[in-house]
Amino acid sequence: MMKQLALSRVYQLLEPGPVVLLTTAHKGCANVMTMSWHMMMEFEPPMLACVVSAGNHSFAALRASRQCVIAVPGVELAATVVKVGNCSGRDVDKFAAFGLTPLPARRVAAPLVAECFANLECRVVDTRMVKRYNLFVLEVVQAWADSARKRRRTIHHCGYGRFVVDGEAIRLRSKMR
Amino acid sequence: MMKQLALSRVYQLLEPGPVVLLTTAHKGCANVMTMSWHMMMEFEPPMLACVVSAGNHSFAALRASRQCVIAVPGVELAATVVKVGNCSGRDVDKFAAFGLTPLPARRVAAPLVAECFANLECRVVDTRMVKRYNLFVLEVVQAWADSARKRRRTIHHCGYGRFVVDGEAIRLRSKMR
Repeated sequence: MMKQLALSRVYQLLEPGPVVLLTTAHKGCANVMTMSWHMMMEFEPPMLACVVSAGNHSFAALRASRQCVIAVPGVELAATVVKVGNCSGRDVDKFAAFGLTPLPARRVAAPLVAECFANLECRVVDTRMVKRYNLFVLEVVQAWADSARKRRRTIHHCGYGRFVVDGEAIRLRSKMR
Repeated sequence: MMKQLALSRVYQLLEPGPVVLLTTAHKGCANVMTMSWHMMMEFEPPMLACVVSAGNHSFAALRASRQCVIAVPGVELAATVVKVGNCSGRDVDKFAAFGLTPLPARRVAAPLVAECFANLECRVVDTRMVKRYNLFVLEVVQAWADSARKRRRTIHHCGYGRFVVDGEAIRLRSKMR
């Protein structure tokens, strides 16, 4: 069901700005958090930046393990995405609590999320902005997408539990990659 | 028509990941580019990161002037946004060529874009990641929003001229700001 996705296409998943899940594995514990503060930095190899607050349980795991998976949920997971964001891995095994299925990744210890239509295995390649900004630079080293799902409607966070869902798609004559 | 927007609400405009316009003013010339690689870094004062390729005409202006405006276009400007992205300020006065109206900003030399429903006056506060990543850290020092337009449908770039337009809005019980 999860097929390899060409790394050259990764930016097409993240550039639209969807809410994503970030998974980590540290000291034998897998965790997952909700994240919206991310952006692409390079097409290929795909690199992105994300801000993970030092207050998040995932922060220490990400900094120590230098690996994560960014999983892209469709709108059908919106309620789960909010539940994941409403609690901390300090207190809860979120995979078990919210019915998310961890799958082994190929290149990192952090798990893929079976319910998400795309999963991006990432390595932390620059931590120099972590102390000042909680900003991690990631390289996507392996990408997976659910070949069964063609149209992928994602959600975008507008603050305080308000989300906008992907609507119509339009095509315009653009020279922009 | 453009009313001041509380700086505490700026993230609600950018966190959903819309395509934006970035304006600069340098040596008496105003320019505008299309940008999707941006993310919030802090709620308040609102700080964001953006990647502006060194190949863009705006790059030198942004680095030298350390100021810009990020203008948020609604879907009705989609065709104009693509035209802006398809050419360079080296060759074209894009404001004149594409019927965009520059308005004086309050705190920066770069112009607001009258046709956009929100305009964010920004100062460059950190250039340490410019050389390596073309990454600028911006602080929003003044924000404006069109009080006349309630529902604001933005566009999100999926690559090669494909855009997804904001669809339905949903509300969920979230503890996330």
